[in-house]
Amino acid sequence: MMFKTVGVIGFLENALVSETVEKLSTFLQDSGRQVLVDEGTKRRSGEQAATRNEIGSQCDLVIVVGGDGSMLHAARDLVDYDLPLLGINRGRLGFLTDILPSELEQRVGEVLKGNYVISRRFMLDAKLYRNEKLVGEGIALNDVVLQPRNSIRMIEFSLNIDNQYVYTQRSDGLIISTPTGSTAYALSGGGPIVHPSINAINLVPINPHTLSNRPIVVAGNSELEVTIEPKNSVLPQIVCDGQTYLSAERGDRLLVQKKQQMVNLLHPVQHDFYETCRTKLHWARD
Amino acid sequence: MMFKTVGVIGFLENALVSETVEKLSTFLQDSGRQVLVDEGTKRRSGEQAATRNEIGSQCDLVIVVGGDGSMLHAARDLVDYDLPLLGINRGRLGFLTDILPSELEQRVGEVLKGNYVISRRFMLDAKLYRNEKLVGEGIALNDVVLQPRNSIRMIEFSLNIDNQYVYTQRSDGLIISTPTGSTAYALSGGGPIVHPSINAINLVPINPHTLSNRPIVVAGNSELEVTIEPKNSVLPQIVCDGQTYLSAERGDRLLVQKKQQMVNLLHPVQHDFYETCRTKLHWARD
Amino acid sequence: MMFKTVGVIGFLENALVSETVEKLSTFLQDSGRQVLVDEGTKRRSGEQAATRNEIGSQCDLVIVVGGDGSMLHAARDLVDYDLPLLGINRGRLGFLTDILPSELEQRVGEVLKGNYVISRRFMLDAKLYRNEKLVGEGIALNDVVLQPRNSIRMIEFSLNIDNQYVYTQRSDGLIISTPTGSTAYALSGGGPIVHPSINAINLVPINPHTLSNRPIVVAGNSELEVTIEPKNSVLPQIVCDGQTYLSAERGDRLLVQKKQQMVNLLHPVQHDFYETCRTKLHWARD
Amino acid sequence: MMFKTVGVIGFLENALVSETVEKLSTFLQDSGRQVLVDEGTKRRSGEQAATRNEIGSQCDLVIVVGGDGSMLHAARDLVDYDLPLLGINRGRLGFLTDILPSELEQRVGEVLKGNYVISRRFMLDAKLYRNEKLVGEGIALNDVVLQPRNSIRMIEFSLNIDNQYVYTQRSDGLIISTPTGSTAYALSGGGPIVHPSINAINLVPINPHTLSNRPIVVAGNSELEVTIEPKNSVLPQIVCDGQTYLSAERGDRLLVQKKQQMVNLLHPVQHDFYETCRTKLHWARD
Repeated sequence: MMFKTVGVIGFLENALVSETVEKLSTFLQDSGRQVLVDEGTKRRSGEQAATRNEIGSQCDLVIVVGGDGSMLHAARDLVDYDLPLLGINRGRLGFLTDILPSELEQRVGEVLKGNYVISRRFMLDAKLYRNEKLVGEGIALNDVVLQPRNSIRMIEFSLNIDNQYVYTQRSDGLIISTPTGSTAYALSGGGPIVHPSINAINLVPINPHTLSNRPIVVAGNSELEVTIEPKNSVLPQIVCDGQTYLSAERGDRLLVQKKQQMVNLLHPVQHDFYETCRTKLHWARD
Repeated sequence: MMFKTVGVIGFLENALVSETVEKLSTFLQDSGRQVLVDEGTKRRSGEQAATRNEIGSQCDLVIVVGGDGSMLHAARDLVDYDLPLLGINRGRLGFLTDILPSELEQRVGEVLKGNYVISRRFMLDAKLYRNEKLVGEGIALNDVVLQPRNSIRMIEFSLNIDNQYVYTQRSDGLIISTPTGSTAYALSGGGPIVHPSINAINLVPINPHTLSNRPIVVAGNSELEVTIEPKNSVLPQIVCDGQTYLSAERGDRLLVQKKQQMVNLLHPVQHDFYETCRTKLHWARD
Repeated sequence: MMFKTVGVIGFLENALVSETVEKLSTFLQDSGRQVLVDEGTKRRSGEQAATRNEIGSQCDLVIVVGGDGSMLHAARDLVDYDLPLLGINRGRLGFLTDILPSELEQRVGEVLKGNYVISRRFMLDAKLYRNEKLVGEGIALNDVVLQPRNSIRMIEFSLNIDNQYVYTQRSDGLIISTPTGSTAYALSGGGPIVHPSINAINLVPINPHTLSNRPIVVAGNSELEVTIEPKNSVLPQIVCDGQTYLSAERGDRLLVQKKQQMVNLLHPVQHDFYETCRTKLHWARD
Repeated sequence: MMFKTVGVIGFLENALVSETVEKLSTFLQDSGRQVLVDEGTKRRSGEQAATRNEIGSQCDLVIVVGGDGSMLHAARDLVDYDLPLLGINRGRLGFLTDILPSELEQRVGEVLKGNYVISRRFMLDAKLYRNEKLVGEGIALNDVVLQPRNSIRMIEFSLNIDNQYVYTQRSDGLIISTPTGSTAYALSGGGPIVHPSINAINLVPINPHTLSNRPIVVAGNSELEVTIEPKNSVLPQIVCDGQTYLSAERGDRLLVQKKQQMVNLLHPVQHDFYETCRTKLHWARD
């Protein structure tokens, strides 16, 4: 039997999420599997909570119920356990959570039988240095964003890629996005859609003062170094996946590169990246 | 003699500004005019400071030395006195401060002789309401910006114009710009350049989630009403000219309309709006 | 009785258009009105065709059945007769043809009773000069477009507004749009939406080589002069409303300004410009 | 001795090009090398012309004098000979021709001594099919562009990637660009800059009717299939590198994929891709 022990995570306090978690747990148990429900998830009375570490070390599949944000959170927490992750959305289709509650039993059933595709996604590793000392770090499946903290003023920073100077920019910040993140915030910021199969990092300036500072797609193995200009009047911050914040200071250096350990997203076999684009972006169809 | 009493304002603590203020004061006094130097400006030893109210009520011309930001500040302070304003930039050309220090005596000399053009610019009046009570207000020559306070999360709000529903938007905020402000932050946000002579308000969504939420140019006399959705997870703020901040709450209503009193910008006769565009935006030339 | 003689125009050879024209003619005649069906429109057997001049001089209302393109065509043909125009779309909502066939009798019935609003729209008048001689002209309700003829090469031209030099541009051309045209081709080209009530012309460069050549909104009464650089390797053309073409030569001058005679669009009273935007652009709603 | 036989190509009828070709030929001969001057190039009196085939088969380095367009032309002609190509621009810096005439002897001298870097660039192979029969083909180093022929009307086509349906689009066409071409026409069309090292194809819709049809970066090994909708009112054409044209018909299928043979661009060792971006795009500097 595949996937003997399955972790279930549903962060959101949302009736639809709770209902789906319960339905999912029952379905998994009925199929003879052991289910570990995450401690941050609303459980059935009497059900025991599993810590993130228990889920990571004991499960061979983790199913996340919620929006894409929940999957981002789970991916950051669990990436080092090298587990396959499957997402059930709480309502409409997401880019990362592509099973609808209404088709839960059918799609999850297929996956349990081994009918799935694996999409390996890389994450970004962000390290913040002050006077050559590491003062903070984070990881991101979608994006690492530099932005001013609590101010409308533009921030000034310079960018080096693999020790080569690129530019000094004044803008509302910089989105450093994976292909996975290219359909999220980076898209609103004017960046291209980058297919998940591509080994590249997508750099999208946010409202740059110089209008020709356009999005740049660089090699996935690049070492990015963002230096926050000491003369800035604003205080910057670094935000990973829109969820974890690092406070930065003028003069700090942010190093971003691909994290070695990748995320394994499972999709039902009929999953179609462009179908998700068509639906979510209202593209015309044949 | 035109402009018998001239106010001089130079907010910035900047050697070039101080030097230009001193040179300007001397030039004006040598021409037989009375000079009132603003209290926020570095003065020559022994020189008396004038309050903003003294400048407003006693001067018949005010000269601002600094960048466009200094002119925005002065315009907001002095608009109700209905004075002509002239700008001297501290280094490079600005959209509002279009005399260079090197040509100070020639250009200011011409203006004092009556050789100038007046460009009348309207301002925006922003009022913030909570439960039908006015809780804050501000004015702006460039723009009134709604944005999330200290967060990377998008803000959700709805827009009505003249009591007609326009849209409900999720984005990094909204720039409500005058034609004057169309070459400032609104341009970085993807908005059009709106010629200063046009009676229109330029609405530029900041990184909207829905990609078809494009800039809209509406009638200058429109009454704009932005309602901050109560369910927002972020706290919003309203920023006038990038300089004055109002804290908003979920559910607040922001009313923005044209301020009745206009700003009178003086330009040397050879001033050319498009020349400033060409220079600052690196447009190709003949 | 209002609108005693009504012209009916349905250019398209389209079953839905023919059916709607027939239903409309019957409805109008049943209400005791005289109907003149345009000679370019498929008529019922035995029905006489009216020339464009007969429609212009004898009718006091003209109803156009088709898409927005049909209304553009009719508006150019009939503007000098100063008639009110009403549009019935052949299927989905248009910006200019905002009655659906399914609601024909109700909406047209209301209009015939006097329940309507008039939206006055200005047109553009384009004149092409070669060696100071007029060699072609056209009018447009949406846009006058300069573009290369049958070539992928960029075209080079310079723009003057009211005899003031603006820029020399290398691009795929220039869209000179009315507010009415701002939701058509100009929007695809990256221009802003300009509310129909605004007296302004919207200049949208098409894929300009210099990335900072952004859309500019200028005064509606401006005189625009586009000079095609003599050294161009491509041959240019001028296209009005995407429907009428003028061949241009290197060195030609294109003069564009507002046409004095305006178009009178009738809308049912519940017409809502922003509702059309929301529907056609898939904007999010409350 | 490296590069014993050097081909010299200078297509443009341009005094600066001719002068540089002459100076270059002399410099190469003085260094003891044999020089083959291309038949399309203006030669010194008495100098023999080499055919493209002689250059391809006999030379071990080809130097192109002209703009980036000249290098595109030479690359298409010579790619199958697998030769290194070096570019000397006729005036200002290009992305592909990055030696200035003023530094010719120094930079070319260094390259001849073996001080250079090789940048391998892939090309695109475009094949046009009508009723399953090949009716035309072309190759491109920058881009393959689908666009309407001699018309302002939008073209409608559908796109499949690796047999997966992507979208049906109505637009002014589609730019299918290599990373090399991402800083050329694709950039004017709103596409991202894609670093030359990345194995990806950049798909940039030209003024799409649906505003959410954004640029997409897909895997370099993708098989792209563009089907021109049979119901189009316009005739389409396919243009390679803006230089070679294929006429298409409604219903045709365009297949585009990476060409196996790559182009070997030589750069002086101090060449810096981002320096070229900064200069040509007026990016701010430190």
